[in-house]
Amino acid sequence: MKQDTKHKIIEAGARIIHLKGYYHTGIQEVLDAAGVPKGSFYFYFKSKEDFGLQAIDFFNSMYLGMVDPIAKNKALPPLKRIEKIFDYFIDLFQGLNYTCGCPIGNLSQEMGDLSQAFSRKLAASVEDMAQIYKHLLDEAKEANEISQGLNTQETAEFIVSSWHGSLMKMKISKSIAPLKLHKQFILDILKS
Amino acid sequence: MKQDTKHKIIEAGARIIHLKGYYHTGIQEVLDAAGVPKGSFYFYFKSKEDFGLQAIDFFNSMYLGMVDPIAKNKALPPLKRIEKIFDYFIDLFQGLNYTCGCPIGNLSQEMGDLSQAFSRKLAASVEDMAQIYKHLLDEAKEANEISQGLNTQETAEFIVSSWHGSLMKMKISKSIAPLKLHKQFILDILKS
Repeated sequence: MKQDTKHKIIEAGARIIHLKGYYHTGIQEVLDAAGVPKGSFYFYFKSKEDFGLQAIDFFNSMYLGMVDPIAKNKALPPLKRIEKIFDYFIDLFQGLNYTCGCPIGNLSQEMGDLSQAFSRKLAASVEDMAQIYKHLLDEAKEANEISQGLNTQETAEFIVSSWHGSLMKMKISKSIAPLKLHKQFILDILKS
Repeated sequence: MKQDTKHKIIEAGARIIHLKGYYHTGIQEVLDAAGVPKGSFYFYFKSKEDFGLQAIDFFNSMYLGMVDPIAKNKALPPLKRIEKIFDYFIDLFQGLNYTCGCPIGNLSQEMGDLSQAFSRKLAASVEDMAQIYKHLLDEAKEANEISQGLNTQETAEFIVSSWHGSLMKMKISKSIAPLKLHKQFILDILKS
């Protein structure tokens, strides 16, 4: 029961953080959205920061839940799976009218200079994202789909960084074009 | 005199916005930093948003002041000038201990979904940044430094997006490596 309520708060809060950022998210607003009695926040969390850090765990699980089934679908060649991940998120953000972006990227931008605890946790999340691409690139190398000379760790990191930058552009241009451009350039790099 | 005071407020405010973001920046804090009497803010600006939008103009001029001398230095081949722009900012952010990032990128992330006025103005700034690269890429094409088949508009947009994503990673990893990786991948694309 205690865990249920806590999870409800994190889930509702994570949704608001994704939409408005960490600082713009008020504790009362989160409790209202979760339908949890006023004043119970500090029963579940030491501080707003503690809550924010646990929201990062929630975002990580959400991301993995979306990406893992594609990344591990051995019925498709590895390069095709990378393409499918891009397409999955292109569809997702089209449905969201080019809003929100990646919560991990957003928090990195917002909190990177303001909290060491956030920075460390966000850096670990971004590294986990890169590892998914690295494994796919390693598989693609084994399958001779990409050049044997490609540094899969560096390429994976670049894919995640340039994806985050493309999401930023999507938000201000209110257009899916930056995400499609990212897909095109990354696939060109991988196929060259 | 009126313009001097206004400029002082924008300059001091822009510095705080760059460091902490728009929402975290308090009006009183800006006036204190500018050494301007309490209460005079609304004499110069219609609202905090009006001030924020004018801070974007300030950031644009600052950016142009840094990049233009490199971009227009005809003593260097165009591709070398692109490389020099990357190196200029790599040095700058090393000096800033991997903090701050690009104020235009930061505001895009923070305000993209929250204010149409910000979005429009930020999209124009990002387009201006891309135009600097586009002109250099067009020059590089004329000089046969890059493939004649390269789409210079799309490539310029991708450079700016992936740069912004790399700055995001820099902030959480507290390392210059993401910016160096950006430089390496972009130059590889251009030289391929």
